Amino acid sequence: MNIVVLPGDGIGPEVTDEAVRILDWFVTKRGLPLRMERRLFGAAAWAAEGTTMPDASWDAIMAADALLFGATGSLDQKHIPAEERRKGSLLRMRKALDVFANLRPVRAWPALAEVSPYKPRTIAGTDLVFVRELTAGVYFGTPRGIQTLPDGTRWGLNTHAYTEAEIARAARFAFTLARTRRNHVTSVDKANVMEAGALWREVVAAVHARDFPDVTLEHMLADNCALQLSRAPTRFDVIVTDNLFGDLLSDCAGAINGSLGMLPSAALSDPGPDGKRRALYEPIHGSAPDIAGKGIANPLGAILSAALLLRWTARAPAEADALEAAVATALAAGARTADIALPGESVLSTRGMADAVIAALEHP
Amino acid sequence: MNIVVLPGDGIGPEVTDEAVRILDWFVTKRGLPLRMERRLFGAAAWAAEGTTMPDASWDAIMAADALLFGATGSLDQKHIPAEERRKGSLLRMRKALDVFANLRPVRAWPALAEVSPYKPRTIAGTDLVFVRELTAGVYFGTPRGIQTLPDGTRWGLNTHAYTEAEIARAARFAFTLARTRRNHVTSVDKANVMEAGALWREVVAAVHARDFPDVTLEHMLADNCALQLSRAPTRFDVIVTDNLFGDLLSDCAGAINGSLGMLPSAALSDPGPDGKRRALYEPIHGSAPDIAGKGIANPLGAILSAALLLRWTARAPAEADALEAAVATALAAGARTADIALPGESVLSTRGMADAVIAALEHP
Ligand SMILES: CC(C)[C@H](C(=O)O)[C@@H](O)C(=O)O
Ligand SMILES: CC(C)[C@H](C(=O)O)[C@@H](O)C(=O)O
Repeated sequence: MNIVVLPGDGIGPEVTDEAVRILDWFVTKRGLPLRMERRLFGAAAWAAEGTTMPDASWDAIMAADALLFGATGSLDQKHIPAEERRKGSLLRMRKALDVFANLRPVRAWPALAEVSPYKPRTIAGTDLVFVRELTAGVYFGTPRGIQTLPDGTRWGLNTHAYTEAEIARAARFAFTLARTRRNHVTSVDKANVMEAGALWREVVAAVHARDFPDVTLEHMLADNCALQLSRAPTRFDVIVTDNLFGDLLSDCAGAINGSLGMLPSAALSDPGPDGKRRALYEPIHGSAPDIAGKGIANPLGAILSAALLLRWTARAPAEADALEAAVATALAAGARTADIALPGESVLSTRGMADAVIAALEHP
Repeated sequence: MNIVVLPGDGIGPEVTDEAVRILDWFVTKRGLPLRMERRLFGAAAWAAEGTTMPDASWDAIMAADALLFGATGSLDQKHIPAEERRKGSLLRMRKALDVFANLRPVRAWPALAEVSPYKPRTIAGTDLVFVRELTAGVYFGTPRGIQTLPDGTRWGLNTHAYTEAEIARAARFAFTLARTRRNHVTSVDKANVMEAGALWREVVAAVHARDFPDVTLEHMLADNCALQLSRAPTRFDVIVTDNLFGDLLSDCAGAINGSLGMLPSAALSDPGPDGKRRALYEPIHGSAPDIAGKGIANPLGAILSAALLLRWTARAPAEADALEAAVATALAAGARTADIALPGESVLSTRGMADAVIAALEHP
């Protein structure tokens, strides 16, 4: 299988290097048939080749079995023309690959109870996953832009839109996933204010009634979900929601371990004619330009994204489990990067944390 | 001053009764010139008079010096025709009164540290206030609706739009408020994805540069704000944001005391020709139909909304401070409704909690 690695900006290259090293371990030690090739895009490609998306990168992205993505967004992106910024953007890739189902698992790692902003009783046992719709909604709706009215004043405009089909496939993904978990789906919208949310609720309910009556479904307003994620995160199993609410709510839940640095994600398409899903794996933290290049970033979001790659693309669930268990072992043994350390605790470098995970893989 | 009381649905009447009782105390004991009159709207008016907005209610609302609002949303609202639902809706009142500045103060009450889902070290000292833009954005943008395409499939559509003027007045309100506090404003948007957010950021920065250079301004992406509200709420002073982000993020912050039941709000217009602001005061919790009529709802959100009324409409800051101090005293003495009690703790009724606040007012 051909994995295209897109390190990107900021801390992207540092953390991606470690995720690749882990995948290499599975290639060497477990014989997984993965081939990794690095490609430039975005600000790095702009600096090197004068375009944010070299043709060779785009062709590789579209042909890949999976993408392993680092981070996007650099301080000097302002100097790249808008047209070029769009060309090499993450949003363009998500749309072109049609990876509409964005899985964002959030669990409370017992070893991080001390560093969490929450009381242990609030978060202990949290194990939820977002299915965030990723290729529609206000991220892609048109018309959009900044327009000047006849009287000279300006207004900013974005369009939030969902078709029945876009909602239905996200719902089907969520219900199918719930069957492999605790069989519970929370569908999140603002149906009390937005017609697009009312349609969301109606379509999710119809998909449920027709094809997934065995799964428990609850509807929740997005504002209430923000509250419940902080009050009682253990009550959730699968949360399905739109692109924008998924963006905010998953960060909200991300606070559970004190740092976004722990959070992985997978963006998946439906299976194509060849039975394969397109897939983009990505830690949820951004490019963090303030700490880039220092070798102190937390690689676990990227490494856990590699675990999702093992599960969803390589179809190697035992290896995915082993990698997640190795992360738990390393954390339990006290391995910490700066973002998940208490004041005064000794911390590892990005590489040191990956070493600790590899050590745990070697001696499970 | 003429205060129109709109108890509304669910627990609205119960908690509003207690807020009115507190205001009556200030009328009787401190001679504040407030006159309260109750009016029907929404589901209650529909049941009693066959319309969700009797003319007499609308006239009273538009003529009032302030509104004291309970809650809206009842289980049987489904049976009210859509047109009538809109007529008696909270959104229609907000728009007609032009109360664009929605203040949502959030503080960590020391007495509630035990019941909070957060560790004390996370929240101790939290004292922030949202200025949520309340009369524009996706709540009001057109076109909107559920449309059927030529091929018979449907899509849901909402429009997120802001004019420069709408952004500028929210920003001015926030900067002016910050000058009375810790002089720090966080402006929240999704400028990396939404053009309306890019304009938001640009206009807030321009208002700042021109008229408020003495206030510290930071820009923050909405997803990151959701994270930071959970990780480090004490870093915020004034948060200014749009209607939808303000809805979600204020609920996110609302978890700090374990219950939305503690949170008040004030929606204010700019001063009119008579120098007066229109004002709608409202606890943030909803109608909570599951506990309505039982006399167990927390009245403190409504009572603290009355404190905001004392500050912003009655211009009685000493009385507002006294009421907030009385709430702190009652909580410190152990007064708890069910939503803010630990398991096994003894709890007060709605009325009992208000009695505790009045007792604290009488013996400060
Ligand atoms: C970088 C940004 C465009 C992106 C988003 O808003 O989707 C990020 O916040 C995410 O959650 O993946
Ligand atoms: C009841 C609902 C329309 C309202 C909103 O979304 O604004 C509520 O959630 C609020 O925050 O005041």
